[in-house]
Amino acid sequence: MFVYGKNACREILESDKYVIKAFFEVNKPHELLSLTKKRNIPTVYLTKKELDQQFSSHHQGVALEIKDYPVLSLHDALTRYSSIINPILILLDGITDPHNLGAIVRSVEAGGVQGIILPKNRSVGITPTVAKVASGALEHVDIIEVTNPSQTVEELKKNGYWIVGTDMVADKRYDEIDVSVPLCIIIGSEGKGISRLLKEKADYNVFIPMKGTANSLNASVSAGIIIFEILKKKGF
Amino acid sequence: MFVYGKNACREILESDKYVIKAFFEVNKPHELLSLTKKRNIPTVYLTKKELDQQFSSHHQGVALEIKDYPVLSLHDALTRYSSIINPILILLDGITDPHNLGAIVRSVEAGGVQGIILPKNRSVGITPTVAKVASGALEHVDIIEVTNPSQTVEELKKNGYWIVGTDMVADKRYDEIDVSVPLCIIIGSEGKGISRLLKEKADYNVFIPMKGTANSLNASVSAGIIIFEILKKKGF
Repeated sequence: MFVYGKNACREILESDKYVIKAFFEVNKPHELLSLTKKRNIPTVYLTKKELDQQFSSHHQGVALEIKDYPVLSLHDALTRYSSIINPILILLDGITDPHNLGAIVRSVEAGGVQGIILPKNRSVGITPTVAKVASGALEHVDIIEVTNPSQTVEELKKNGYWIVGTDMVADKRYDEIDVSVPLCIIIGSEGKGISRLLKEKADYNVFIPMKGTANSLNASVSAGIIIFEILKKKGF
Repeated sequence: MFVYGKNACREILESDKYVIKAFFEVNKPHELLSLTKKRNIPTVYLTKKELDQQFSSHHQGVALEIKDYPVLSLHDALTRYSSIINPILILLDGITDPHNLGAIVRSVEAGGVQGIILPKNRSVGITPTVAKVASGALEHVDIIEVTNPSQTVEELKKNGYWIVGTDMVADKRYDEIDVSVPLCIIIGSEGKGISRLLKEKADYNVFIPMKGTANSLNASVSAGIIIFEILKKKGF
């Protein structure tokens, strides 16, 4: 896959991630050139127009071709988190907008959440736009790919996780989440919220009290508000 | 300007806003058609490809041509809010991404914030993408256009507003904002945060404690976290 934008590319170049190829704007010195030279990465120089066409107008003069982002299975993730006290996971139910997923990846990283559970057929994947918007955070976040969100929830329950859904109509406020247990927070899609099945399977659901008439938030904003409220309740 | 997407268009059609023209996909019944017919709005039918080209692939089968969004002057806004107890304003310092502005408009509306101050030359304007992402909320939010953010801050101070900057390095946490006074919260740009001048002019600055390595959030997520923390502190 391709990654573009200054921050996203720097984060990769400073990691030990394998980079297949680098792309820069021709005749324009770029702050990341020295890093690609130091690592002997094959480099292609393109005109601004060619970069615009191949990536998007937001490339900021640099793009990288890398291997696809590695994803974890639920089993491997649960093993990895078994030594962590009260881990937190975010399950995204039907997030299709790459800007939202990118912003959520950033909040998850900054909020110390362990990983993001991404249902394979009901979500946007890890696209270049997601990586760009995540602004480097993707390198530090576990992406857990699952096929069946409902089975995933059952598996998490068996492993001691409490499942907390989010919805406009719910039993508790978002600041009433019990943070002294392993948690999996379900965030719904931009348009439809979380699915009825997952809402019913959740141990409880929470809402964010709102004042306006529209009564809904951008999915990445909802996720951020809840993640940082949990962090605060954990005493951070 | 043009607005597209189901929610954004419905909100306009249900308001008394003047609509110049409506666009629908040809031969495809659309749930908003009856509304445009009721209001006798001139309607154009286009193929999906034509809609994709003229708007974006996210049009959901409907677009409207409307007059440009009305903006308020700072003076008019201050007059309008003079009867409100402890109003809240958000000043956006250099937000250039329309997805972020759209998501912020939504949070502002849902969070009961009075208006958004948008510096003319340092921000994205109200584009169709902003209206789409705001998902109808733009109809209920005051946009206050200013030319000089620094003078704006002085003017707000004279009118009793406390100016609160946001930065990674700051004196107070975001949950320590005194909400018992009129407030203007400054949110910085995606890459650079708020300008040094505005940081210095602020009565105080706040930070959001973070756990990760990247140590920054998407601008719309930061704004959302702060707005809903204020709402909570106000007892809502």
